[in-house]
Amino acid sequence: MTKQIEFSLPAFPRGFHLITQDVLKQIVPLPETGILHLFIKHTSAGLAINENADPSVRVDFETAFNRLSPENAPYLTHTAEGPDDMPAHIKSVLTGASVTIPVSRGRLNLGTWQGIYLCEFRNYGGRRNLVATVYS
Amino acid sequence: MTKQIEFSLPAFPRGFHLITQDVLKQIVPLPETGILHLFIKHTSAGLAINENADPSVRVDFETAFNRLSPENAPYLTHTAEGPDDMPAHIKSVLTGASVTIPVSRGRLNLGTWQGIYLCEFRNYGGRRNLVATVYS
Amino acid sequence: MTKQIEFSLPAFPRGFHLITQDVLKQIVPLPETGILHLFIKHTSAGLAINENADPSVRVDFETAFNRLSPENAPYLTHTAEGPDDMPAHIKSVLTGASVTIPVSRGRLNLGTWQGIYLCEFRNYGGRRNLVATVYS
Repeated sequence: MTKQIEFSLPAFPRGFHLITQDVLKQIVPLPETGILHLFIKHTSAGLAINENADPSVRVDFETAFNRLSPENAPYLTHTAEGPDDMPAHIKSVLTGASVTIPVSRGRLNLGTWQGIYLCEFRNYGGRRNLVATVYS
Repeated sequence: MTKQIEFSLPAFPRGFHLITQDVLKQIVPLPETGILHLFIKHTSAGLAINENADPSVRVDFETAFNRLSPENAPYLTHTAEGPDDMPAHIKSVLTGASVTIPVSRGRLNLGTWQGIYLCEFRNYGGRRNLVATVYS
Repeated sequence: MTKQIEFSLPAFPRGFHLITQDVLKQIVPLPETGILHLFIKHTSAGLAINENADPSVRVDFETAFNRLSPENAPYLTHTAEGPDDMPAHIKSVLTGASVTIPVSRGRLNLGTWQGIYLCEFRNYGGRRNLVATVYS
């Protein structure tokens, strides 16, 4: 059995955002056992799995990723689309364009503290298109 | 065919550890052809695939990741759980929470030098829970 | 249905290279709906998904990754295989050893600007072996 759904998420501000519930809404009901593959069709945003509780974690992710790939660095040459563009590409490769999560007992088998992040690396990234594929 | 096993690994010290054999023990026998998806249910540890031979590689991984996300950085705000906590979250996103490996001729089709790493980013992370899903 | 193909790519120079067409050539025809898992069997190269158009993006990736893991850093101990070796391992974990891409309507469901990158982190990495697994 395969279920595949393409959907878009509304524009998020730059930063790290919990989208677990937005994703679940698209893919329920889930099979008893399987995996969910979630893919983002963009090169300046990413997906990740991390802490779902304290918002300060997501603030620190934004800060830390800006240090991993600073804007206006003199060594960057791809600057035509603005100072946030090339760093967004780099950050997108660091997080990756997809996450894969086990499905067990009809639910996403995430740890207690895990949630799915949409990582918006552009200042104005707009709507983002995703593809969810569920295998059982 | 799907096989899914949830299991835990004993506490590892902070650092990068080869767990290929520990994982194999849980999932054998493997199908003739397929994929293994391995997922860690934590936000301050990660999984990765890298060099399975010289232990100095794993020492350098620990050093290099500490430089990518230093402790006690003045720009971090999520500090209530200790100086190793927020860097552990950041490192966990850099490695990712899962690895997916092809299965061929009934074995994990890793390269000669590849092994599965458990990346323990906390000083005292304790036991870690994983989910292995095998597709054929 | 599972299709799995092991193949090798010719030696690429150090840097980030678009291999979408090289991969497609190996795996067509694709099923109507599914996922492609692509895995690289090496610890000093990686796979990623990012911008498929402006070559300056790929130049900046090479520069930025060299800053994330500099060569000849005094804190690295695994130096016997040359100054590009340990940084290559670190970069390989940062990109990851695999990408997973949805297949929809018989094609890779990549975004308009997305392509598959082979990330060659060694100066002389030689041929690289990959495994493509397609599920429908």
